[in-house]
Amino acid sequence: MKILVTGGAGCIGSDLAQRLLLQGHSVTVVDDLSSGKLEHIAPLLPNPRFRFIEADLVDPGTTQSAMPGIDFVHHLAANPDVKYSPGDPTDKDLRQNILVTYNVLEAMRLAGVKPLAFSSTSAVYGIAERLPIPETDPMLPISLYGATKMGCEGLISAFQNLFGMRCWIFRFANIVGPKVRKRGRTVISDFIHRLQQDSGKLLILGNGKQAKSYLTAAECVDAMLFAIERAAGDLHVFNLGCDDSLTVDRIAELVIEAMGLPGVKLEYTGTEGGWPGDVPRFKLDVTRINRLGWKAKMTSEQAVNTAIEALVPLCRP
Amino acid sequence: MKILVTGGAGCIGSDLAQRLLLQGHSVTVVDDLSSGKLEHIAPLLPNPRFRFIEADLVDPGTTQSAMPGIDFVHHLAANPDVKYSPGDPTDKDLRQNILVTYNVLEAMRLAGVKPLAFSSTSAVYGIAERLPIPETDPMLPISLYGATKMGCEGLISAFQNLFGMRCWIFRFANIVGPKVRKRGRTVISDFIHRLQQDSGKLLILGNGKQAKSYLTAAECVDAMLFAIERAAGDLHVFNLGCDDSLTVDRIAELVIEAMGLPGVKLEYTGTEGGWPGDVPRFKLDVTRINRLGWKAKMTSEQAVNTAIEALVPLCRP
Repeated sequence: MKILVTGGAGCIGSDLAQRLLLQGHSVTVVDDLSSGKLEHIAPLLPNPRFRFIEADLVDPGTTQSAMPGIDFVHHLAANPDVKYSPGDPTDKDLRQNILVTYNVLEAMRLAGVKPLAFSSTSAVYGIAERLPIPETDPMLPISLYGATKMGCEGLISAFQNLFGMRCWIFRFANIVGPKVRKRGRTVISDFIHRLQQDSGKLLILGNGKQAKSYLTAAECVDAMLFAIERAAGDLHVFNLGCDDSLTVDRIAELVIEAMGLPGVKLEYTGTEGGWPGDVPRFKLDVTRINRLGWKAKMTSEQAVNTAIEALVPLCRP
Repeated sequence: MKILVTGGAGCIGSDLAQRLLLQGHSVTVVDDLSSGKLEHIAPLLPNPRFRFIEADLVDPGTTQSAMPGIDFVHHLAANPDVKYSPGDPTDKDLRQNILVTYNVLEAMRLAGVKPLAFSSTSAVYGIAERLPIPETDPMLPISLYGATKMGCEGLISAFQNLFGMRCWIFRFANIVGPKVRKRGRTVISDFIHRLQQDSGKLLILGNGKQAKSYLTAAECVDAMLFAIERAAGDLHVFNLGCDDSLTVDRIAELVIEAMGLPGVKLEYTGTEGGWPGDVPRFKLDVTRINRLGWKAKMTSEQAVNTAIEALVPLCRP
């Protein structure tokens, strides 16, 4: 198959592109390198079945020109940073998530491309009334990131129905791995950087009690490919994650241990969430993907530890 | 209060604007008259507390210039036509629903305006797994209209949380009334027009078995104002409708009866839904608004009949 991976120079997209090449497919990656990195796809560039287009999909013409001949679209391009800080523009997610996703859908419609896998997020749920959260629970997002991913899900659902597409929507847990994106720190890279600057103390955003589900990028790619192969209907929504969660305090301990730093003083901003729009506690109900036959091999702690082990040496100044 | 009603020249918005003026408020209506009509607000124009701005809210500057001094926003402006016909642009709802709603939210944020009532739709649910549909059930819209209203709900939920707004989201049943919009026929006006052209037969889009909930615009305005007064929390979602539904076949009978036409031959396009993206059967669970103390006075049949009685003389060629 000829497969398009948008956002394919990102931490997850580049893993996916590599896996698809190994399966024998031809892969086109479109990425504007705003958060993805050329180094993530550098090993793939010599492969004659690999093509890289550096472009911003917010331009409809660019998106449309990438589509002819494509058999399957993995749409991962997005603003990857859930955080909103006062002073940030409020239309970044609108543009990079909703407008780009509309452009991808419209380009698929025009070119007659039917199957789409979309990377959504557990942030669509907001503060859930119950944990773990099944896919059928209400969506009341508290971040612009979650809000715009929810808008993308709506567009995909409508395009699927109106134009006979086949779509898989994956709501990711927090995805961690050995790659570092260009901008927007994750909790692990944030802790490593802070400890490199001052190994005596660590400022934790929030009260440390935040507890979330983690999954490695490798397992995330596994789960997506598994679901696409097994769930062959017209429209599917899957939570992707493991079935437990991990506190921020525990992640701090794991990073400190991996960096071999004794006596680090923990300090807290003290809020319930780490930043405006942060969902302090979530755990996904992954029964649906489990029933299909896929289950995460790692717990949240194992996933985070794998990422820490890879990132600590990488982040050395 | 100084109240902004976007889409205030529409069938529902103009009723709402009139009611707010009667309550003693000052009302600013912004409408681009693309589906609203000047005649709907003509009776309000002489009122010194009424102001009309003819403008398209898709322009951020226009939206922002209407906001200073406003105490409350009723955001009804939208593409009102749920239908998608092959050949239509697919970005109309994206622009008129999502981009306009983002512009309204951003203008409110910039001007420090906190309370917002938003007109959403039962079309956000798509083909529901169970009827009646409570507010907490999944959203898998099958129309671009429903999809983009779902996107608006996401944005409102996030803005509410990030910027301390107070928001009421109302998911409307099919709203009917004595006013006719500029473009996009409803089932009632469609039947009347077809019978005026040929009183011997009536073509029904679909198989006639479609069954939906109806509410008059007057009762819809009642319900919104009631909920805003009584449900004073930060974020509310309400289904607005009555607790029954009415078939398209029965509406055809009622229109034929009201027009005094014997022996009309009914013809059907025969599909389950009337058009691509049409949800053939829905009934809203209105327990939440009922528990707050509001209940529709009219059944779906009474609501539709009220509209038919008003529209038949109006639509005479």
